[in-house]
Amino acid sequence: MKDFDVSLYLVTDRNLLKAGRDFYDAVEESLKNGVTMLQLREKDISSKEFYEIAVRLKDIAAKYNVPFIINDRIDIALSVDADGVHLGQEDLPCSIARKIMGDNKIIGISAGCVDEAVEAERDGADYIGAGAVFYTGTKKDIGEAIGLLNLKKIKEAVKIPVVAIGGIKYSNAPDVMRTGVDGISVVSEIMASDDVGFATRRLKEAISK
Amino acid sequence: MKDFDVSLYLVTDRNLLKAGRDFYDAVEESLKNGVTMLQLREKDISSKEFYEIAVRLKDIAAKYNVPFIINDRIDIALSVDADGVHLGQEDLPCSIARKIMGDNKIIGISAGCVDEAVEAERDGADYIGAGAVFYTGTKKDIGEAIGLLNLKKIKEAVKIPVVAIGGIKYSNAPDVMRTGVDGISVVSEIMASDDVGFATRRLKEAISK
Ligand code: NI
Repeated sequence: MKDFDVSLYLVTDRNLLKAGRDFYDAVEESLKNGVTMLQLREKDISSKEFYEIAVRLKDIAAKYNVPFIINDRIDIALSVDADGVHLGQEDLPCSIARKIMGDNKIIGISAGCVDEAVEAERDGADYIGAGAVFYTGTKKDIGEAIGLLNLKKIKEAVKIPVVAIGGIKYSNAPDVMRTGVDGISVVSEIMASDDVGFATRRLKEAISK
Repeated sequence: MKDFDVSLYLVTDRNLLKAGRDFYDAVEESLKNGVTMLQLREKDISSKEFYEIAVRLKDIAAKYNVPFIINDRIDIALSVDADGVHLGQEDLPCSIARKIMGDNKIIGISAGCVDEAVEAERDGADYIGAGAVFYTGTKKDIGEAIGLLNLKKIKEAVKIPVVAIGGIKYSNAPDVMRTGVDGISVVSEIMASDDVGFATRRLKEAISK
């Protein structure tokens, strides 16, 4: 049985850190303060560097017993024995990922509409990352904002957990949760914060409202 | 037993094709005319697109019974059940690749000096890509030109096959082969040619001199 909780799902982005902040410290602080799932997302770095970052984050995630997910790169996930991968619509197909990774790894799929979510569930996905819910500058490749109504439709169309992605902040998190989704995924709301611990606790509070 | 012949090893680069040439036709023509090993190298495309290209090239390589190798991306190699991967010094470590891919897949490692070649052999590499032998604009990440003398030293330092990489042309191929290496790897000499079949046959002749 896969045991994971998407309720407060952090996706990393080293470029958003405040000047002088250490990436690993920031991630650890977020886990200590309630992040329930961690995704390492990197673009435009070598496989070796990606691997080295993944090795360190895996240890930190394990310390807090939080599932550790790799964005896109199944090879990096296998290299560090991560708990799973998160795949976008431009990444490897879910069915292929399942074949390579086996039944025990978590596979999350980004979906921008009901069709994509239903297809992902049928292909063996363990959760859906639905969005972008709101417009965001941080993930250029996830397309147009879908809004809360479409988010609700996606949630109602599948049985697997749905985590809302894209533009989610403390201020809109309660509205997002009222669509019925299982959690929120954030990048900048935690990574770009002056106080990562406070930002995390505040989000934790917002989703339990 | 792994059975492969590095003597005329083509590394793809779609960007070097003459205007109007079809990539798959060009690769097939090179295989038909004597290429003995094929490596798909792609940068800056989505995993999905990389996968789709790999699916098509794998079929073409199989038709000519030529081993099909993927550059860097072990996940793409596993996805299409390629014959192996080629890893640079900035890619995943050889030992990790071996663990993920198993004993039956071919793993080639780029080496720019004797130390790197010896380390790769010790870590379970099946062949060495040694270079860049000459200066080349096509692979920015393989470093300075090492020259024929260092190529010879690398060849003499390991038992596994060594294929020379970087700046190899019809005109310098006989000199390269006289260092004792097992083959030459080319990109532009075939991919950028007006007549891929002719360029391949000419190289074939040059390496048998
Ligand atoms: Ni060295």
